Amino acid sequence: MAGELAINLATTRGSWGFAEAADGCLQRGISAIAPWRDQVAAVGLAEAARIVRSEGLRVTGLCRGGMFPAETESGRQAAIDDNRRAIDEAAALGADCLVLVVGGLPGSSRDLSAARTMVENGIAAMLPHARSIGMPLAIEPLHPMYAADRACVNTLDQALDLCAYFGEGVGVAIDVYHVWWDPKLPTAIARAGRMNCILAHHICDWLVPTRDLLLDRGMMGDGVIDLAGIRQMIEAAGYTGPEEVEIFSRDNWWRQPGETVLATCIERHANLQSQGRT
Amino acid sequence: MAGELAINLATTRGSWGFAEAADGCLQRGISAIAPWRDQVAAVGLAEAARIVRSEGLRVTGLCRGGMFPAETESGRQAAIDDNRRAIDEAAALGADCLVLVVGGLPGSSRDLSAARTMVENGIAAMLPHARSIGMPLAIEPLHPMYAADRACVNTLDQALDLCAYFGEGVGVAIDVYHVWWDPKLPTAIARAGRMNCILAHHICDWLVPTRDLLLDRGMMGDGVIDLAGIRQMIEAAGYTGPEEVEIFSRDNWWRQPGETVLATCIERHANLQSQGRT
Repeated sequence: MAGELAINLATTRGSWGFAEAADGCLQRGISAIAPWRDQVAAVGLAEAARIVRSEGLRVTGLCRGGMFPAETESGRQAAIDDNRRAIDEAAALGADCLVLVVGGLPGSSRDLSAARTMVENGIAAMLPHARSIGMPLAIEPLHPMYAADRACVNTLDQALDLCAYFGEGVGVAIDVYHVWWDPKLPTAIARAGRMNCILAHHICDWLVPTRDLLLDRGMMGDGVIDLAGIRQMIEAAGYTGPEEVEIFSRDNWWRQPGETVLATCIERHANLQSQGRT
Repeated sequence: MAGELAINLATTRGSWGFAEAADGCLQRGISAIAPWRDQVAAVGLAEAARIVRSEGLRVTGLCRGGMFPAETESGRQAAIDDNRRAIDEAAALGADCLVLVVGGLPGSSRDLSAARTMVENGIAAMLPHARSIGMPLAIEPLHPMYAADRACVNTLDQALDLCAYFGEGVGVAIDVYHVWWDPKLPTAIARAGRMNCILAHHICDWLVPTRDLLLDRGMMGDGVIDLAGIRQMIEAAGYTGPEEVEIFSRDNWWRQPGETVLATCIERHANLQSQGRT
């Protein structure tokens, strides 16, 4: 039990830009990728879109919009404007969704509740544009250790509450790294299935020990996450789309050649598939 | 709004053992402490208990029992036996409660659900002894970033589910560091109040950035946790007991003299009290 292998281009960031990564994936039979906006900007949006079309690539998501909270009204407006541009970029690439990492506490604030309201307001402000061009927004709940500085949406249920509030055009990206620990995960995934709002499934692994809060994610199989079990829940909830490998690994995978990283992703993903079949 | 200041002796671990820390606290008018078992063992349980009695110290908790999951039946039994000894040590010190850090995934397991069942079984096995001598067990939900290696009870609601299951003699220790991010925190604290099971309230702060998953906790005021707001919720839930400062800080507070650490705790705690009054 496993979906098509997709590569989030953060995974090969250490050695490859957009074009090299797209080539590298295609050479190994991988035709689904998820780029980051800076990688697209470096090659140029038009050129990135041309590569996607001419090679028949599937873009499983564009990373990322979000980062809504700001200390000032003008700061919040700037974030909304930037998110509208991100929607256009995702549309130009034909992406399945725009991934939202919603942002944490602005400035020196200690008010998580206010930050969460800013997130709601930000999504509300960008949603009409997203709907008008048919670009789904995928809220990605981030691990609670990022609540202060990256995302104050920290559980799948919290993200689903937002989906229920907004309705059409808003779903979730389920990244195992962020949600694997949650005692409510099985019921939350089932709920997401009933709401028909799973837009993406990201995989990697949780290393023990984890040496850096942000940049020490593991390759599938090197950590403790029950990847096959979570995939099973996600498929039972009706999502059979790609499994997108997203690994931030400053001291390991980002130091290795893109070829090695991709070959390892392919091997480990095949292992997961065989686990799922037993 | 703030409770009596108590010092968890992990906070002064860098420079002081049990006797020095007890002296240091008493000299500054602090008469509530929470020692760790290794600190008690180093001075000897009988001597520690003598100091507590002769100085009229309040022991707000003994740290710690728990660590139930193990790969083998004999390993799990050894943990239960050790927890029974911890209950006796807590009783000898006249502690308010024995704090339980329940343990994470055993060995190379990826089965969080099984680990959580081992925790339930472990508490069930030690509870008759705890009840027989009247020692409350305080389950401490730990931050989800410790799910693999320290505690697979990761939200206050999850801990309260265990309290509801076990009933008399089992409560919770609410450490802000572990729960501050939780969107369900207000409702969970209110639930804990209705269940009358808040046994301890630990404070420190979440630093941005956090440089180490375990040993980079901040002093109150140096981070982003809304300490006054959380205390208010806890008092509204009926708990007016001590605020126990528990800081693991390898590269900062553990390198400073115990006197400096205590003076800073006192000052920051006074700041919190004045915030609570405004």
